[in-house]
Parts: sequence; structure tokens; C-alpha cells
Amino acid sequence: MPTAIKADHINPFIHSTLNVLETMAFTKAQIGKPHLKTGEEPVCDISGSIGLTGEAAGSVTVNFVKGVACQIVSRMRGEEHTEIDATIKDGVGEIANMVAGGAKGEMQAKNMNLSIALPTVTLGHELTHSHPHDVTCVVVPFTTDTGSFTIEVALKTS
Amino acid sequence: MPTAIKADHINPFIHSTLNVLETMAFTKAQIGKPHLKTGEEPVCDISGSIGLTGEAAGSVTVNFVKGVACQIVSRMRGEEHTEIDATIKDGVGEIANMVAGGAKGEMQAKNMNLSIALPTVTLGHELTHSHPHDVTCVVVPFTTDTGSFTIEVALKTS
Repeated sequence: MPTAIKADHINPFIHSTLNVLETMAFTKAQIGKPHLKTGEEPVCDISGSIGLTGEAAGSVTVNFVKGVACQIVSRMRGEEHTEIDATIKDGVGEIANMVAGGAKGEMQAKNMNLSIALPTVTLGHELTHSHPHDVTCVVVPFTTDTGSFTIEVALKTS
Repeated sequence: MPTAIKADHINPFIHSTLNVLETMAFTKAQIGKPHLKTGEEPVCDISGSIGLTGEAAGSVTVNFVKGVACQIVSRMRGEEHTEIDATIKDGVGEIANMVAGGAKGEMQAKNMNLSIALPTVTLGHELTHSHPHDVTCVVVPFTTDTGSFTIEVALKTS
């Protein structure tokens, strides 16, 4: 059975995502309804995933379709990219890193210890992610003027 | 510039991979030539990736094409699976977890501290992974009687 997951563990990732999008990519994101991941969705073209250890072990993954990744990273870089190239891949890794870093900061302020690994960016077609059965995974959808994207936070709390 | 990476940091992952394949899947693997990852290869269908923190931060990822993943996990489970289903995905995550866990044990025996996150399994078509520019990534190919697979160890050592 997956362990219970608390809002205290998910909210820092939501806050951090909104903050990274707004401050780094000048993009206001609206939060959709967070839900437990039960199937294979979301399907995406590029994702940035980063491992988490400490009080809560697991990973946070940011999932984009091609067009949204290109537009958001183009805004971060101040130059237009319409295809997934090295700049877009680096940018997606940076977003994952900043989302995890921001969440770590918020959790530390509440005396929750979290260490973050380094991002791995995966590119492909019809990408889906899965996690161990005893890990709770929450998918949070976001909408922006560039389109939608999701984060998935998979955590096993001690 | 990527940091230098030492054999001491890669060998535990190689030893652990050989050990996991042999003890869990009754499969002898031969090591190919480890090389620095410079491009996008290897391309795969399913990968299990796990974040690492501590003295060496980064990730280890095990990459399989469909047929090899199915055969190796079928041997682990003692039942035949010819398509990527929930059992194969779980098995690939377990392999990543055991490879990282074995490497952690070997590194700890040498007084190197490593914490491991939880595995994320990614399924898709023409999957490739990329890592931050300042991280050294070594790709290690393995061959078995079921076909070839690779691990990629991306580490930034402190």
C-alpha cells in the first residue's frame, strides 16, 4: 500500500512550480486539480526528473509536450526555439532543478529535510512514467497561455 | 566543464549491475567499453532511473529495448512476458533500485557516502536521456544472451 501523502509534502512543489514559471519564464500558471496517479497518464514528449532523498524520498518530474516546452524555455532564454534542441533540453532540466530546489527551501523552513539529486531530461515519443507500488504519486496539472503541463511528485515519507 | 569522474565512482555500478543480473535474473552479462556520453545515445524503449545524493550527486539509469527488458524481467519473475506490462515496468524499476543499492553498499565500504532516491520507470519510443553540462556521464554497455543493454551513470562529485 502506498504511504499517505500530506499537503505539506505536495504544496511546496506546487508553490515552487508557480514561482519558477513566473520569475524565470514570465508565465503565469493556473493550478488544475491535483490527483493521485493511478494509470499511465500524463503522456508527454520531454520530461525533467530529479531524485529526492531525506525525510521524503522519491522524485519530482516535470512533463511537457513539445510546443509548451519550446515556448516556456524560449521565454526563459529570451530567444525563440521552435524545435527541441540542446537549449530546450537544458532548460527543462533547469526547470526540474529549480522546482525541486524551491520545494526543498520551503520544506526546510518547516524543518523537513530534503536532499535533491541532479536532473535527468528524457526525450522521446509518448513518454509515460511509473513509480514503485508503495510510493504515492500525485499529478498536478497546470495551464498557461502556452498550453498545459504537469508535474508528478512521487514520495515515500518516513 | 564536467567534473572528473573516477573509476571508484563508476566501478561500483558496474559490479552491482553484473551481480543483479546474475543473482536476480540468472543472466551473465559481459561488460563493453565504458565511454563518456557526448551525444544522445543510447536510444531505448524503457528505462529505470534513480537519483543519487551525498558525496556523488546525480543519477543512474538502466536502459533497455523492449525485447531485452521482457526477457530479463521474465527470468527474474520466473514467468514469460513478451510485452511491456506492469510486471516488466516494476521489474525495470527494481533493477535500477538494486543496481543503485549495490553500488551504495560498495561505496560505503570505501567510506563514500551515497543516498539513493526511488526509481522512476519511463516508457516510450526512441527514448534518450540528457544531463546537465557540468555533470560527467559514463555509458556502460553490457551484452547478454538476451541482447544488449546499457547503464548511464551521471555524477557530479564534491
